[in-house]
Amino acid sequence: MRLSLTNEISDLINSYHELNSGPVDELEEEPSPLEFMRYVARNLPFVVRKGASDWAAVKEWNAKYLVDVMGEQLVNVAITPHGNADSVVELEDNSLIFVKPYDTEEPFSKVIKKIQDQERSLSSQEPTRYAQTQNDNLRNEYIQLFSDLPKDVPFARISLQKSPDAINFWLGNSHSTTALHKDNYENIYVQVRGRKHFVLLPPVEGACINEQLIPAATYTPRPTSTSSSTSRSSPTSSRSHSPSLADTGTALDEGLNDLVVSLDEPEENVPFATWDPDLPDQRPTPFSKYSRPLRVTLDEGDMLYLPALWYHKVSQSCSSEGICCAVNYWYDLDFSGSFWSLCSFTRAVGLLTLGRNPQHGEEDDA
Amino acid sequence: MRLSLTNEISDLINSYHELNSGPVDELEEEPSPLEFMRYVARNLPFVVRKGASDWAAVKEWNAKYLVDVMGEQLVNVAITPHGNADSVVELEDNSLIFVKPYDTEEPFSKVIKKIQDQERSLSSQEPTRYAQTQNDNLRNEYIQLFSDLPKDVPFARISLQKSPDAINFWLGNSHSTTALHKDNYENIYVQVRGRKHFVLLPPVEGACINEQLIPAATYTPRPTSTSSSTSRSSPTSSRSHSPSLADTGTALDEGLNDLVVSLDEPEENVPFATWDPDLPDQRPTPFSKYSRPLRVTLDEGDMLYLPALWYHKVSQSCSSEGICCAVNYWYDLDFSGSFWSLCSFTRAVGLLTLGRNPQHGEEDDA
Ligand SMILES: O=C(O)CCC(=O)C(=O)O
Ligand SMILES: O=C(O)CCC(=O)C(=O)O
Repeated sequence: MRLSLTNEISDLINSYHELNSGPVDELEEEPSPLEFMRYVARNLPFVVRKGASDWAAVKEWNAKYLVDVMGEQLVNVAITPHGNADSVVELEDNSLIFVKPYDTEEPFSKVIKKIQDQERSLSSQEPTRYAQTQNDNLRNEYIQLFSDLPKDVPFARISLQKSPDAINFWLGNSHSTTALHKDNYENIYVQVRGRKHFVLLPPVEGACINEQLIPAATYTPRPTSTSSSTSRSSPTSSRSHSPSLADTGTALDEGLNDLVVSLDEPEENVPFATWDPDLPDQRPTPFSKYSRPLRVTLDEGDMLYLPALWYHKVSQSCSSEGICCAVNYWYDLDFSGSFWSLCSFTRAVGLLTLGRNPQHGEEDDA
Repeated sequence: MRLSLTNEISDLINSYHELNSGPVDELEEEPSPLEFMRYVARNLPFVVRKGASDWAAVKEWNAKYLVDVMGEQLVNVAITPHGNADSVVELEDNSLIFVKPYDTEEPFSKVIKKIQDQERSLSSQEPTRYAQTQNDNLRNEYIQLFSDLPKDVPFARISLQKSPDAINFWLGNSHSTTALHKDNYENIYVQVRGRKHFVLLPPVEGACINEQLIPAATYTPRPTSTSSSTSRSSPTSSRSHSPSLADTGTALDEGLNDLVVSLDEPEENVPFATWDPDLPDQRPTPFSKYSRPLRVTLDEGDMLYLPALWYHKVSQSCSSEGICCAVNYWYDLDFSGSFWSLCSFTRAVGLLTLGRNPQHGEEDDA
């Protein structure tokens, strides 16, 4: 029985790849609503090279422009020792935790300067900053920048018959990587400055990504008293242990160079991908070897359709100014019809086959 | 393990129904290509009441018109004792066989007269005739009638970016029922005369329909010598055994009133649905109770979109002339993207859970 299910899952992945080969489709120009719906129907990604090149944001934004508009306004920023917001960290005892960034507010001008300084190696001991709140921030804290962007992506709005659930602004540097995860969203992603490198896995590869239920934790500045009941053995990388006290310039930064992992209270376990397609030999499942990750790099002005439920890992390269800046539009996945139900079932069968309990709930929309 | 998979399958079916409730959508008019693609994307059916009412076929066709056009031309006709072309028959020893009709050619004028006479109970001992070749017959043997039909369904052609693989003509009476099965086609079905009653099950209900691998057989006129090495115990209904020799009028009909089941040679097993949503207590699986069949009746001029891979059972009612006549357009399913792969996987897991071998191949496009 178990053996047979193993065959069924490898058949699923392999037959999918036989029917869907090759690189991500590249379109010459924005699709029509009908053309877009054909991609949604097949749950297949595409890139429109230079699809957003006439957007004001793509034409105008640079570090100075952003600072001129946003100034000292406080913005949310994710701070991590290794650029690993929302990621799996292996502790010294080999156990895994899902660690969220230290979330704080800082003046925008400071955030972008820290991002640039780190990229130029002017502040290499400092933690990594990534403005990535994913909470519709362009219609909230970055509202002043939103006038440089379309309110919506017309082909997606007409096709999906809905407005975006969230429109997000992302500002970081090459030190940040977004770990492999999936979202319940149809995603239109536009690169503004610098480049983003996407690794994409289709939903049928759910059994490759080694989803595990792991304790949630949060990076926290080390308390002045060194003993804390909730902090645990630190990541295998010793960086968060470094006793360095860089000159971070303001009192706000106190402790940021010594972020420690604190287990969330009350304890919470979250399901998360623990396999990394870029480190295929670490923590694989018996199915990981069938994965055929698609890779696509977005340049300035490029637009990606990242279909709902695709696993994606995202890393970044900076513009000459030392920033990587993007925006994206998230449209709620349509839960009706067969697709969502079939994907949930496939994920559950994969987990069962790997000896895990599929009733532990869905992965966070991290 | 087995218990858990059982839970996963019932969860799949039940959560699907929570997300997709209610009757088949009814559209006021033909969808646009984009509106159609939204239904294809969700793999959900719809009906357009009177959607084909201005087609020449719907306006013009009646028994006399059809005979005027087709005359004595030989056409293919499926002949069965109980109106059960391509269906599961239970033998006296309770074993099941998949029985195909006796296929022969007769003059069109004779076929339609026999269909009408049987409907009016003028020839009740005769077998049932159904012109249902499903082999693109409107562009072959019924080509003279094809000029009364659109060459294609524009919204489907534009949306799917392909021409129909087959355009079929169906002529029968209320004695014929098409057994529950699925096709790898997007199906646009138009009722011309009489009414068709569809029972529709979504692909996620694959574990409800009790697919089994059963020996294929064909109805065959009883050979003059009564012993035949390939004929087997007859269907539980005794009708095919009846020794009656009705006056069928021509030498061609000899033996047609005594059709016996002959196992195909060489022996072949075919996978087929053995559960009937109209007889839910017979041959259920543990999952059949979760099925929620959708029922829709097509009247003259109505158009149905029957999405690929939906199980459908079809029965019919006649016009006042004693005929039931329809046409349909089959467009190849798009095997790329996630949908086909996920459906095949789900079917295979369902079969495994029921203790069957999923490697026995796909159901015929019967
Ligand atoms: O740009 C990133 O770092 C991650 C993007 C992402 O995960 C998303 O758009 O869903
Ligand atoms: O009309 C019928 O009897 C059956 C129709 C059918 O199975 C189909 O159109 O695929």
